[in-house]
Amino acid sequence: MLAEIITIGDEILIGQIVDTNSAWIAAQLNLIGLRVKQISSVSDEREHILTALGEASRRADVILITGGLGPTKDDITKKTIADYFGVGMVENPETLENVSKIFARFNRPLLDVNRQQALVPANCQVLINRNGTAPGMWFSENGKIYVSMPGVPHEMMYLMEEEVIPKLKSTLKLPAIVHKTILTIGEGESFLARRIADIEDALPPHIKLAYLPKLGQVRLRLSGYGESEGRLREEVNDYAARIIERVKNVVLAEEDIPAEKAILNYMAERGLTLSLAESCTGGYIAHLLTQHPGSSKVFLGGVVAYSNNLKESVLGVKHETLEQFGAVSGETVTEMVEGALAHFKSDYAIAVTGIAGPDGGTPDKPVGTVWVAVASVNNKVVKKLTFGNKRKENIERSAISALNMLNTLMHESGK
Amino acid sequence: MLAEIITIGDEILIGQIVDTNSAWIAAQLNLIGLRVKQISSVSDEREHILTALGEASRRADVILITGGLGPTKDDITKKTIADYFGVGMVENPETLENVSKIFARFNRPLLDVNRQQALVPANCQVLINRNGTAPGMWFSENGKIYVSMPGVPHEMMYLMEEEVIPKLKSTLKLPAIVHKTILTIGEGESFLARRIADIEDALPPHIKLAYLPKLGQVRLRLSGYGESEGRLREEVNDYAARIIERVKNVVLAEEDIPAEKAILNYMAERGLTLSLAESCTGGYIAHLLTQHPGSSKVFLGGVVAYSNNLKESVLGVKHETLEQFGAVSGETVTEMVEGALAHFKSDYAIAVTGIAGPDGGTPDKPVGTVWVAVASVNNKVVKKLTFGNKRKENIERSAISALNMLNTLMHESGK
Repeated sequence: MLAEIITIGDEILIGQIVDTNSAWIAAQLNLIGLRVKQISSVSDEREHILTALGEASRRADVILITGGLGPTKDDITKKTIADYFGVGMVENPETLENVSKIFARFNRPLLDVNRQQALVPANCQVLINRNGTAPGMWFSENGKIYVSMPGVPHEMMYLMEEEVIPKLKSTLKLPAIVHKTILTIGEGESFLARRIADIEDALPPHIKLAYLPKLGQVRLRLSGYGESEGRLREEVNDYAARIIERVKNVVLAEEDIPAEKAILNYMAERGLTLSLAESCTGGYIAHLLTQHPGSSKVFLGGVVAYSNNLKESVLGVKHETLEQFGAVSGETVTEMVEGALAHFKSDYAIAVTGIAGPDGGTPDKPVGTVWVAVASVNNKVVKKLTFGNKRKENIERSAISALNMLNTLMHESGK
Repeated sequence: MLAEIITIGDEILIGQIVDTNSAWIAAQLNLIGLRVKQISSVSDEREHILTALGEASRRADVILITGGLGPTKDDITKKTIADYFGVGMVENPETLENVSKIFARFNRPLLDVNRQQALVPANCQVLINRNGTAPGMWFSENGKIYVSMPGVPHEMMYLMEEEVIPKLKSTLKLPAIVHKTILTIGEGESFLARRIADIEDALPPHIKLAYLPKLGQVRLRLSGYGESEGRLREEVNDYAARIIERVKNVVLAEEDIPAEKAILNYMAERGLTLSLAESCTGGYIAHLLTQHPGSSKVFLGGVVAYSNNLKESVLGVKHETLEQFGAVSGETVTEMVEGALAHFKSDYAIAVTGIAGPDGGTPDKPVGTVWVAVASVNNKVVKKLTFGNKRKENIERSAISALNMLNTLMHESGK
């Protein structure tokens, strides 16, 4: 059973907003076994909307439409949908009551333009939107289901969770879909592929493996399609276990979470704490960690020592070390990580210093030269990394390399 | 002249990742006068890709394709594009050299699967990807332009900026478009609109004003469309000057740069330095600043004092203050900002402490309670802010509020 998502509105097409709705909707549909075949963003134009509806209906069984239902634009979208089905518009009393209530709650007069929000195509079944004035609309025509929802995310989410998903589940005979994601770090896509080639070749046709690479990490996602969810989950888990066993030295998580979250979970489970001494990553590693709720259980804090003075005063890096070897050196990064451990009293510490670029390189130390140190009281690893000349990428690669080194060090020390 | 964007890959269709590439590409195309008619995300399936290419070519003049170019088995894009044009695959020596160089730089052997990255459809003009192994490909067929790029954002962005945009500009007859952006901070969209209503009403039809709001900031973008770029620029600049004059108290930059970059520029011009004492923003402000080249001229560093211990040891916040008023209080944030100034010896300092959520609130100090202090040796402002219960948004709003306060303090003290 296939679905398509159509997003109507120019703000996505001019790049003013990123379409986060579609990914959210797609994830919800996947959970109930509806596979999304295509996502399309189209303009606020009648002919274009009609074409998009026609194309989607030839590919999919369920077509979800978001956007284009605001009080200024709803003429075109709703009217176009009515034209698509060849029906007229009628006033829906429940919607009018909902709109009136919302305006009454905010003590605002109900204008004609707001009253029109209760006009819907004659063949639709209204889904009442408790979070806004634009109604959801459900159409069942020629064996296909069409649903139109407003584009405001919390209104769309309300309608999906309360109305659309339950109604889809009760209306359709859906197959089971099971996904399992394995997060690996520190090994390239093609090397991983070679290591698990025989497992991949042995996959049955109803189980697919996807490689999703991202800066030093590769997500391996197994997706199984079938009749019985329980059976499918067993099968998918079995293949996942074989892959994990094969590449376990680079597996960071057996679920779909970011690398830093996997590290936070691992450390939280073991009661371990972490501090940071960042120079060229400039607070990025701290930000990665602290965006996650509960990170304060593990992360004590850190210093962003951009100037040499701060490296000395807060971390206790020796002036002579900086003079003799420079800020970007194995000696300095070693004293940084030792300073972080000593001053911030954490179980583990990460230190990073480098030349993020695009300027500041020398023949000896070109842009992209980065030193990373990871240490506990008993163990320490120091590495020199060599990246390119893109600042943002150097910062992100340094961070993920540092997390990878921390992960390896913790595993090697059995912690 | 119309464009379409096709994104290939199942990870968007199952909602695992949000398609941020398309919005970025759309914004770049708009800047050179290419309007995006439709954005489509399609699956990694041959027939589906062929259909999408056919549909797009009937609507648009330029078709940009991202994704599906990795070295592993799930990527069939290149072969499908060759089939679409009815051509075979050839090995491209420049691409092979690029791939070999990248592998040599990382001291890794070149596998057969990597060698295949140099295979391209026979009718394509290769765009060398200096940031990765998958080449960009440019096709000119039947009066239409097709461009295929990898889906990894920084590789796609490199190819767009260095190759695709310049080539589109030189190949196509595009109208002259002139944009001028004014960045404002701290005033809502509707208030701004009211203040400049008469200027907006007086705009000629070929000059449009867009309000682009984002977390406490509003970008005002004037776009002029016409024949002569020089004439147009004069006109647009003239209207921009009138708007800037009217709302100058909230203007942070007269160009399209992020708020923190405007602050860095302002401080660098005046030889001023900045340090940070972050708690709930967790390194986010440091990261915002240090992502920009040259930030080290202004930003000395800072501490991410997540634990109370670090607030005491590194910033010198008094134990009694933390005991009596708590970590989230005007007293603590004041001592934090004073500690940053004293220890890091900067001209200005920012301190932030709060409850980012989603947990950790109390009846007195609910989630979203944030204290911000900004100070120089002579001046200090301390403010309590109240946000909602979304962690990410609280972190971002705290950061932008702090930058706004710093901007105001610097302007008031004539620095």
